[in-house]
Amino acid sequence: MSSNIAREGDYILIYLKPRKTWLVKLQQNTKIHTHAGYLDTDQILGQEYGSRIISSTGNEFVILQPTISDYLMKASRPTQIVYPKDLGAIATWTSLSPGKIVVEAGTGSASLTCFAANLVRPDGHVYSYEKREEFLAPARKNIERSGMSEYVTLVHRDAVSGLDQKEADISFIDVGDPWSLVGSMKAALRGGGNLVSISPTINQVEKVTVELIKHGFVNVETMEIMYRNMEIREGMSRPSMRMIGHTAYLTFARKALM
Amino acid sequence: MSSNIAREGDYILIYLKPRKTWLVKLQQNTKIHTHAGYLDTDQILGQEYGSRIISSTGNEFVILQPTISDYLMKASRPTQIVYPKDLGAIATWTSLSPGKIVVEAGTGSASLTCFAANLVRPDGHVYSYEKREEFLAPARKNIERSGMSEYVTLVHRDAVSGLDQKEADISFIDVGDPWSLVGSMKAALRGGGNLVSISPTINQVEKVTVELIKHGFVNVETMEIMYRNMEIREGMSRPSMRMIGHTAYLTFARKALM
Amino acid sequence: MSSNIAREGDYILIYLKPRKTWLVKLQQNTKIHTHAGYLDTDQILGQEYGSRIISSTGNEFVILQPTISDYLMKASRPTQIVYPKDLGAIATWTSLSPGKIVVEAGTGSASLTCFAANLVRPDGHVYSYEKREEFLAPARKNIERSGMSEYVTLVHRDAVSGLDQKEADISFIDVGDPWSLVGSMKAALRGGGNLVSISPTINQVEKVTVELIKHGFVNVETMEIMYRNMEIREGMSRPSMRMIGHTAYLTFARKALM
Amino acid sequence: MSSNIAREGDYILIYLKPRKTWLVKLQQNTKIHTHAGYLDTDQILGQEYGSRIISSTGNEFVILQPTISDYLMKASRPTQIVYPKDLGAIATWTSLSPGKIVVEAGTGSASLTCFAANLVRPDGHVYSYEKREEFLAPARKNIERSGMSEYVTLVHRDAVSGLDQKEADISFIDVGDPWSLVGSMKAALRGGGNLVSISPTINQVEKVTVELIKHGFVNVETMEIMYRNMEIREGMSRPSMRMIGHTAYLTFARKALM
Repeated sequence: MSSNIAREGDYILIYLKPRKTWLVKLQQNTKIHTHAGYLDTDQILGQEYGSRIISSTGNEFVILQPTISDYLMKASRPTQIVYPKDLGAIATWTSLSPGKIVVEAGTGSASLTCFAANLVRPDGHVYSYEKREEFLAPARKNIERSGMSEYVTLVHRDAVSGLDQKEADISFIDVGDPWSLVGSMKAALRGGGNLVSISPTINQVEKVTVELIKHGFVNVETMEIMYRNMEIREGMSRPSMRMIGHTAYLTFARKALM
Repeated sequence: MSSNIAREGDYILIYLKPRKTWLVKLQQNTKIHTHAGYLDTDQILGQEYGSRIISSTGNEFVILQPTISDYLMKASRPTQIVYPKDLGAIATWTSLSPGKIVVEAGTGSASLTCFAANLVRPDGHVYSYEKREEFLAPARKNIERSGMSEYVTLVHRDAVSGLDQKEADISFIDVGDPWSLVGSMKAALRGGGNLVSISPTINQVEKVTVELIKHGFVNVETMEIMYRNMEIREGMSRPSMRMIGHTAYLTFARKALM
Repeated sequence: MSSNIAREGDYILIYLKPRKTWLVKLQQNTKIHTHAGYLDTDQILGQEYGSRIISSTGNEFVILQPTISDYLMKASRPTQIVYPKDLGAIATWTSLSPGKIVVEAGTGSASLTCFAANLVRPDGHVYSYEKREEFLAPARKNIERSGMSEYVTLVHRDAVSGLDQKEADISFIDVGDPWSLVGSMKAALRGGGNLVSISPTINQVEKVTVELIKHGFVNVETMEIMYRNMEIREGMSRPSMRMIGHTAYLTFARKALM
Repeated sequence: MSSNIAREGDYILIYLKPRKTWLVKLQQNTKIHTHAGYLDTDQILGQEYGSRIISSTGNEFVILQPTISDYLMKASRPTQIVYPKDLGAIATWTSLSPGKIVVEAGTGSASLTCFAANLVRPDGHVYSYEKREEFLAPARKNIERSGMSEYVTLVHRDAVSGLDQKEADISFIDVGDPWSLVGSMKAALRGGGNLVSISPTINQVEKVTVELIKHGFVNVETMEIMYRNMEIREGMSRPSMRMIGHTAYLTFARKALM
């Protein structure tokens, strides 16, 4: 049970109510300020996760261990991130799981990178390629904060010129011109390996699909994931009035040998 | 690369075209019959995954390693299964990942069980409770076939009477009366642990939400995941005319200590 | 109240349960056969609409006046029809209403034609152009059966070569190459007139949008309408498991003068 | 063509770009101010609809005749309005069309009232009942502005106590407790008449469904309409990132005689 105690240096999630949460690194003798009063970290250190803490203004907070989604949604985001609804589908359809070797082109804010690393660890690994130098530092910071540094290798290179991996299990393409990377990714994947390309427009999907088929990939399928929150109150339940209309299309394929 | 070779005893996926696939166990000197001709297993044994095989009638097949989704969709199903679109969301929002201890009430066809086991292995474990005796044998068969037996303990018991676990990280409720299990699941979870309840009707969602709040759970949120396939052909791309309208609502919560 | 009586020659809807209905023309001394027994038309003639009639096997039916949707869904359909969910949006966004002059290219099965005629009558009119001779007869039959012949002029001509109308209020384009008709439709519309183009693929939508903008149309907007039935039973309510994934995109525009 | 000229006293829609429009009443010698410069009404009076007008800052506007949707979306709204996506479905499934007699309980902001009046005129009529006195004045103003006063009778009464109509074709229920009005509406409808009840929560839908079935209504069906805008740009087309998640469920039924 000792592993369930909030200790110095831990990232913790301070929960007030749905969508009112704070991700903070626990340090001794510090105040955590919110619009609902402040918490003193000495109230939190040594407490069990799930404990309720009262703020300076009398509001009740709960301390939680961040899930990988919490890290991703709280990450600094110089680029569009891959949303949790899409991450889940990617995990399921590419068979992300412990031990898998993943190659990724387009690290961006590293949300998909961290999510994948969390599922393939400790024996798997994510090799993530990013050509835009300005994204490397924030990506690295997000990877570190989520505790995934050990399972990720970040490479500053345009993946069009080829990857160093040859027998990867899974490939992610998350760039604006995904079709240009199909050849590189094919070379990096093992026979039967799974690929996903993530694109907001239907035109990108068309182009990458054509290229995947040309390179002999099979089971090429595109889907869109939508999700809607429900507002549940006894006797007054209904779907939420707000909804994200679209994030990206997901195109899946499997490498066949020629 | 030797691990990427189809060997006797392996389950393999025979791919003809999207949604035309067969999951078979490789045995020497056997014919695999399909509507597009038969394959001889001697054509397949020793081949690399991703290889193309020609059937007796000249059709091209590709041999693939099954993903966990392939196992689930091909499983024998005496009960409604949890669909891949929902599995992904469950993985993301409950933080399913290597090393986690999962407790489940309502094994059913074991699709969620196998999916979870595949993500928590090798150090995590899924303890799955099923009260209906007639589901135990098919569940066990599906668990074995997907190779997850080592990571799953199947318990024949009504979880209402309590679980043997005390510090589980994640709890699944997949029964018709989910509200009746909230107390048992609370006792089985560690502080801050994640729970998901899966129900087709909004009335079930209302009742379990009331019960979760009464037991002090926080961050209680319900969502619905929809997915739609796209039909992509160059210059003629559109959403699929067919779509699954609804499977289940997913209600997530986190255990707070009283 | 005499207008609410089922008389010889009327089309009536025989209702057994949701989605189990029959559209029949009332004739004396005839049997109407269903899988739930037969009805004798002499049981029906002279009855008030809404009356319950017992079949030969003891099942209860209700006699109803068909709505325009009933006619459309029961029409013979050599082509894809425009679905009710889309018809409603077209009515709302093009301002279909009594007195409006409508021009249509692509009569098809005349579902949109009949729907529009029913809303613009008695002073408005629908001029519908169809180039494919084989569709004229079934279209004419559907128009007659729905009682709209007086308000529709069917023209056998490719609308690309121009329409006879000059000051139409509303224009429908429902053909495979909608972009080719933008010029003809612009010439047929009054300043400020409303246009809708109906297409299943996103590529068609792109092309017609480009052409509409080139011709100076304004307020060019595309939308997709989805609908989902709910299965409502006290204490067991949920969305329907079945849903139509996609029918068509609707592109709306208004004619501006150059 | 003279009917297509903007004249003094007309309501006109000033269009700048999608979702940037203004609904104004044309008066001589007046300036219409927008964030993109002002227009002088003398530039507009006597112009044909569809004409382009240049503002004081050089921006191009187009003058349009408002559609009924434009009136509704620009109406003053003390209450939640019925949205265009739902109006269209109501028109289609209740068979709103010229000549129909409509009874409505819950005038609210009169958006559904005006929409219906525009479709049943000139020979049909809408009788709309509103019990809350504070809504009568804004409703009356919206009805007048949309030009529908002649076709609407507004009644200040709780419809629970009964309506004055006996043979209405169509009934709308748009109140918080729709089940309480089923009896009154049944009495006001002719045999076979169509009813729609509009409610945001699933609990309201359950209760009204139970009551409709108890009163012998048939073909009781509930649906939800969703719509999503598409962002169409050549080579960069995708669904809109924003979407309304939910407005209301629509429950349709037809009156059967006992």
